[in-house]
Amino acid sequence: MELRELAIKKLEERGVKLTDIADITHELQGRYLEGITCDECLDMVNQVLDKREVIHTILTGIAIDEVAEKELIEKEICDLIRADNGLYGMDEILALGITNLFGSIALTNFGYVDKNKPGIIGKVDREGKEHIRCHTFLDDIIGAIAASAAARLAHNKEDIKEAL
Amino acid sequence: MELRELAIKKLEERGVKLTDIADITHELQGRYLEGITCDECLDMVNQVLDKREVIHTILTGIAIDEVAEKELIEKEICDLIRADNGLYGMDEILALGITNLFGSIALTNFGYVDKNKPGIIGKVDREGKEHIRCHTFLDDIIGAIAASAAARLAHNKEDIKEAL
Amino acid sequence: MELRELAIKKLEERGVKLTDIADITHELQGRYLEGITCDECLDMVNQVLDKREVIHTILTGIAIDEVAEKELIEKEICDLIRADNGLYGMDEILALGITNLFGSIALTNFGYVDKNKPGIIGKVDREGKEHIRCHTFLDDIIGAIAASAAARLAHNKEDIKEAL
Amino acid sequence: MELRELAIKKLEERGVKLTDIADITHELQGRYLEGITCDECLDMVNQVLDKREVIHTILTGIAIDEVAEKELIEKEICDLIRADNGLYGMDEILALGITNLFGSIALTNFGYVDKNKPGIIGKVDREGKEHIRCHTFLDDIIGAIAASAAARLAHNKEDIKEAL
Repeated sequence: MELRELAIKKLEERGVKLTDIADITHELQGRYLEGITCDECLDMVNQVLDKREVIHTILTGIAIDEVAEKELIEKEICDLIRADNGLYGMDEILALGITNLFGSIALTNFGYVDKNKPGIIGKVDREGKEHIRCHTFLDDIIGAIAASAAARLAHNKEDIKEAL
Repeated sequence: MELRELAIKKLEERGVKLTDIADITHELQGRYLEGITCDECLDMVNQVLDKREVIHTILTGIAIDEVAEKELIEKEICDLIRADNGLYGMDEILALGITNLFGSIALTNFGYVDKNKPGIIGKVDREGKEHIRCHTFLDDIIGAIAASAAARLAHNKEDIKEAL
Repeated sequence: MELRELAIKKLEERGVKLTDIADITHELQGRYLEGITCDECLDMVNQVLDKREVIHTILTGIAIDEVAEKELIEKEICDLIRADNGLYGMDEILALGITNLFGSIALTNFGYVDKNKPGIIGKVDREGKEHIRCHTFLDDIIGAIAASAAARLAHNKEDIKEAL
Repeated sequence: MELRELAIKKLEERGVKLTDIADITHELQGRYLEGITCDECLDMVNQVLDKREVIHTILTGIAIDEVAEKELIEKEICDLIRADNGLYGMDEILALGITNLFGSIALTNFGYVDKNKPGIIGKVDREGKEHIRCHTFLDDIIGAIAASAAARLAHNKEDIKEAL
């Protein structure tokens, strides 16, 4: 799917590498699963990106951030999106479209990183809050991918245990 | 909330009156609840619009439709949104952000109108499919509001019954 | 996973064969995708059952139906579950835990069959409504599996088209 | 609604007072909103309990915990529920049926308390993990109510600010 390549390119343009996302997955699951490597986490991030709806969310979310940044939409809506107020809610809704696909652990993981903002999520959130760029949707999308990759890792480890 | 007025104005600009939405609510609940009037349905639609996240969904969804229509975003993403393919999924995800607030009946009602496309939903969907305008998000938002108003009506009627 | 075998056995004990579920999937997707066979639909149903959370939902939902049927829980809660009132909501919530895993088409498909009650869903629903057995959770679980299998089919067909 | 009284009684029987839940709400919102009192938080918890589906979730979740505790269902399903493994997932699914009604902040709040287990959630979780009682559903339900009350508080404060 060539849209997948475009989604990864857009993430990079906005300052996010897949390894940055894998680092958050590692932090999330490291305490539960011993001996997890960053490479395994990156592998899971890549598997999350295999889902069509995940790619669509990345492309749509970044598109909204960009039109708000360039002020291509009506001022009131632009202000609403750029303020990144916790009550806006649309950024979390799109992100939940990702985590839903990976079960309830993905969802609770997402709630956790959404509050704690580890690694690249904190960096992106600060850039947005300082109005350098508009990252209202981006930080939630990163959090949702990292949280989903962590959930997939937990399910895979359990599958291996059950098969033994 | 002045954003509420803006949301109603944007709906009208895109060809949708609140009474059109109330008509779908009437069709949805008419068969279960006897003697429901169009005025009661309109009242429920207005109550759905009292929720902050519903207003944000209307404003955000129509903003995406408009930037896609005017081709203000990258061609690939623009094409993705305008095609309104059933596998795109983002339009349903935003709409579910509305129905979730009104419980599980809202959600099953939404699934139903999303397939059947009664009244204004069908009209808007056809305009979009014929590429006259881009209504990828609009039809799902209308469906979600009508479905949520129907759910609220069902809950209210039950409250009255229990209180007797 | 041996719990998978148990889930299939429990479905059969309650009167539901996987081929009955596949028939609903066929009815749902037949009109969109030409030349779909019942075997392909059954294959998709089996893939839906590969997810751990789907198995857990079947086992949990049927367990609740059974304790309500045998009146092993407090009368008020038992009555609440056995009445199968549309406002109860818990049956749809559990079912949505299944459809969420398969994206937004699964969800709108579910809303549709929840209203139309085709094939085995209608049969099970009637048995429940006539208080022969308690099937409050079962009919929604069947609907969710059939709807998810239909969504998976749609995604797979698109993958093949894109790969050509 | 008399089911509401029953739900509060069941919570108390299982060791949970509404003030315990309000304490978690206070902890969740205290850092964002200055001068919030425990009474305001308790008031919000009571408003969350005004929703029919919240009452149904409490009654259903505790009923499942009790039948698992008393071993009234098949051994495999009983073991599955009592193990309270993170991959079971049904407890979070039911809890999300509550948070969904209160918007996306409720949901991220829930993810956070589900990991941190503050106050009564931690106490209930430990009792369950030590197999003194089965609290697989209870801890998530408490977390969801506290998280939803916090979300409602945030929305109310914003409404007041906007009205000034």
